Amino acid sequence: MARLSRLTTLADGQVLLPGFCDLHLHAPQWAQAGAALDEPLERWLGRYTFPTEARFADLAYADRAHRHLVDATLARGTTSVLYYDTIDRAAAVNLAQVCAERGQRGFVGKVVMDDPDANPDYYRETAEQAIERTERFIGEVRALADEAGRTGHAGASPAAATGATDVDGGGVRGAGAQTAASAPDGRAALDPAPPIVQPVITPRFIPSCTDAALEGLGALAAKYRCFTQSHCSESDWEHATVRERYGRSDTEALDMFGLLTDRTVMHHCVYLSGSDADLFARRGAAVAHCPLSNVYFANAVAPIRRYRGQGVTVGLGTDISGGYDPSVHAMVRLAAIVSRNLASGVDARLGAGERGGVPEALMTLDQAFYLATVGGAEALNIRAGRLEPGYAWDVQLVDVHAPGNDLPVFESDEDPAITFQKIMNLSTPANIRAVWVQGRLAHGSLD
Amino acid sequence: MARLSRLTTLADGQVLLPGFCDLHLHAPQWAQAGAALDEPLERWLGRYTFPTEARFADLAYADRAHRHLVDATLARGTTSVLYYDTIDRAAAVNLAQVCAERGQRGFVGKVVMDDPDANPDYYRETAEQAIERTERFIGEVRALADEAGRTGHAGASPAAATGATDVDGGGVRGAGAQTAASAPDGRAALDPAPPIVQPVITPRFIPSCTDAALEGLGALAAKYRCFTQSHCSESDWEHATVRERYGRSDTEALDMFGLLTDRTVMHHCVYLSGSDADLFARRGAAVAHCPLSNVYFANAVAPIRRYRGQGVTVGLGTDISGGYDPSVHAMVRLAAIVSRNLASGVDARLGAGERGGVPEALMTLDQAFYLATVGGAEALNIRAGRLEPGYAWDVQLVDVHAPGNDLPVFESDEDPAITFQKIMNLSTPANIRAVWVQGRLAHGSLD
Repeated sequence: MARLSRLTTLADGQVLLPGFCDLHLHAPQWAQAGAALDEPLERWLGRYTFPTEARFADLAYADRAHRHLVDATLARGTTSVLYYDTIDRAAAVNLAQVCAERGQRGFVGKVVMDDPDANPDYYRETAEQAIERTERFIGEVRALADEAGRTGHAGASPAAATGATDVDGGGVRGAGAQTAASAPDGRAALDPAPPIVQPVITPRFIPSCTDAALEGLGALAAKYRCFTQSHCSESDWEHATVRERYGRSDTEALDMFGLLTDRTVMHHCVYLSGSDADLFARRGAAVAHCPLSNVYFANAVAPIRRYRGQGVTVGLGTDISGGYDPSVHAMVRLAAIVSRNLASGVDARLGAGERGGVPEALMTLDQAFYLATVGGAEALNIRAGRLEPGYAWDVQLVDVHAPGNDLPVFESDEDPAITFQKIMNLSTPANIRAVWVQGRLAHGSLD
Repeated sequence: MARLSRLTTLADGQVLLPGFCDLHLHAPQWAQAGAALDEPLERWLGRYTFPTEARFADLAYADRAHRHLVDATLARGTTSVLYYDTIDRAAAVNLAQVCAERGQRGFVGKVVMDDPDANPDYYRETAEQAIERTERFIGEVRALADEAGRTGHAGASPAAATGATDVDGGGVRGAGAQTAASAPDGRAALDPAPPIVQPVITPRFIPSCTDAALEGLGALAAKYRCFTQSHCSESDWEHATVRERYGRSDTEALDMFGLLTDRTVMHHCVYLSGSDADLFARRGAAVAHCPLSNVYFANAVAPIRRYRGQGVTVGLGTDISGGYDPSVHAMVRLAAIVSRNLASGVDARLGAGERGGVPEALMTLDQAFYLATVGGAEALNIRAGRLEPGYAWDVQLVDVHAPGNDLPVFESDEDPAITFQKIMNLSTPANIRAVWVQGRLAHGSLD
């Protein structure tokens, strides 16, 4: 890359892409990512996941793992992450601190799971504790965001607030000249300069919470206008459990508790009915599509294009460690892959016409990329995900000729559409040379 | 890694795994890997693939692309590859030369496609040309293998022939004390020191060849006891086309032409009937399972565990560029992934019991790893794929703490089974520190 005064010229093979949003990631599960995925859910939770999460009560351990994870996701071009942490308030605050320090947009949830019949004694709290601690957590993270803004971190500086971004002494022409983006139907207006960290109200999922906890969290969501997240209709089991408990769908139950708002991202959503998806669209609630995790724990492929057709905002999530891969690049690939299995059907013993494929479910690479960028940013109500004036400079610099990589780009006059596809399907962290969040360099360098 | 005289001690976090076999890779398509996968087969072939392959008539271009590819696959721990090259004999010989030079086991096919109704004028030959050129190619590659053996490359040295392997001055205890492995049912005996390169008779697939070409190639296979490969029952279209032409299955037709032997690997095999699979087992022919490519071009998931249950030898293939990823590590992951979609079914609109899932199709990560190592080596009749005395030292050294990687292994006393799963699911080329083929260092270093 040559630099002339304030002008930076990209070298041959270097391209700028919007940073990716990861709408679902259990931060403590990074410590077990890749492991135990052949186990059924109950054993996976009880034998591996809950002990792994409980260990984050050790703040030194939590801090080490959080830093490793935030660095790993930034290195993969992920500029915004919607995190679950653990039920431990201090650990979750630590995650928010690490995000603010490293300059990654962190939407951080302190997990709530209080039902004594559904959770181990060593890893749960009471409904009262859950609500009180969540409220305290909201205050702490908002204070942290204010502090980060005052100390010059991204989010609250006047330059950032206009969408103008300072890239290593350069500037973006036209930035700041735009007015606020209009919001998608049912969603809150997009914010070109949100706080670097935000607290998220996070009941693990309905089956692990009592009504008292869910009611209390719904009240907090209204009181503080916070983001909410949970798992929704992830598997046959979860979907059926909620219906049995309330006589209504997971979506309807979450809505009943005030947890389905225009600041909501619900994870998985594999089994939404037509009216469930309509309710998402009306409320302005978004869906985190987790194609890899669903392979292991959902029993079917989420019909994302159907939801999109009904006006639902959808982004992508890694769901570490229900999915093993921390890369949203990988999720783009996998969203296309699983959509193809859904489109064609899978059982070769049946004739092509009897295989039960859903051709209209097929998702192209471009469509999956849209979910990782525009879809994810809209789900988080941030004006990012596009390289356009007025949008936050949440950007990854991809270099097809970076050292330590071997992308097969043999000619400098290759069709850019082909190079884009090669990048999306074949790039590794080595290809991602630099990552900015709100105009601030958060990974790599320009050199 | 500390080294004391002839003893090499692995550092904490370093593990040895068998090298991987890639049973299906179109070498020239590396130039377009990752691109155009949203296109239907006909456009993908006509607009992208045939022009890409035809370009390899330019030997300088071919040489550059071949070197890039062989290095890229070695860097991912792939020690043996069964290649398609192009119809150009000289280009295919070049690929064998590059393999011999770099020290990767290359099973190389000069592609045959001669039907004027099925192939473009600029990229086909006559049946006579195909047979004559294939025969010449067999001689050239065998001469190359002899030459490589004489100049000290892996394959024909006395030390290698006993299975004893010389690892950077060290040695393997017990190596050479074993007798030749007994072959799996129906297969040829496994060779602990095969030639570094071998010619492979390679009709592209039945729909692109005339009967005259197929008959001639079958005769060459018998005459030279060569490996044969082709695509078999890959898609609904291919499967139906062959049945329409011969009134028999693809498997039966290939057998009729003498192309289904104990030195055969057939690619994809998504639609084998029970009797087709039995015929594979009886002939000792192997299947290359290509889980990623099948997502794009096969219309269903290959029921690999059913074939294994019938005694068929199965390994994994990347099928560059019907699949985009040159890593067999990635194929291990994807074999597990697509097996899960087959096991559960995919359409969430249907009840769990009506989704048409095939639970017995589920493949664990360990089972997929077996295919990448033991299965692949048996398919190629090489005594490798296991870290045992008497087996060729085809090995990859994986380092969970290698620079430029961020595998989440936080503790040195982690359960090795967990670390293994993390490696299989999360490693990148950065983790692969060294690769040996037949005891010769072919990638990386011990330092």
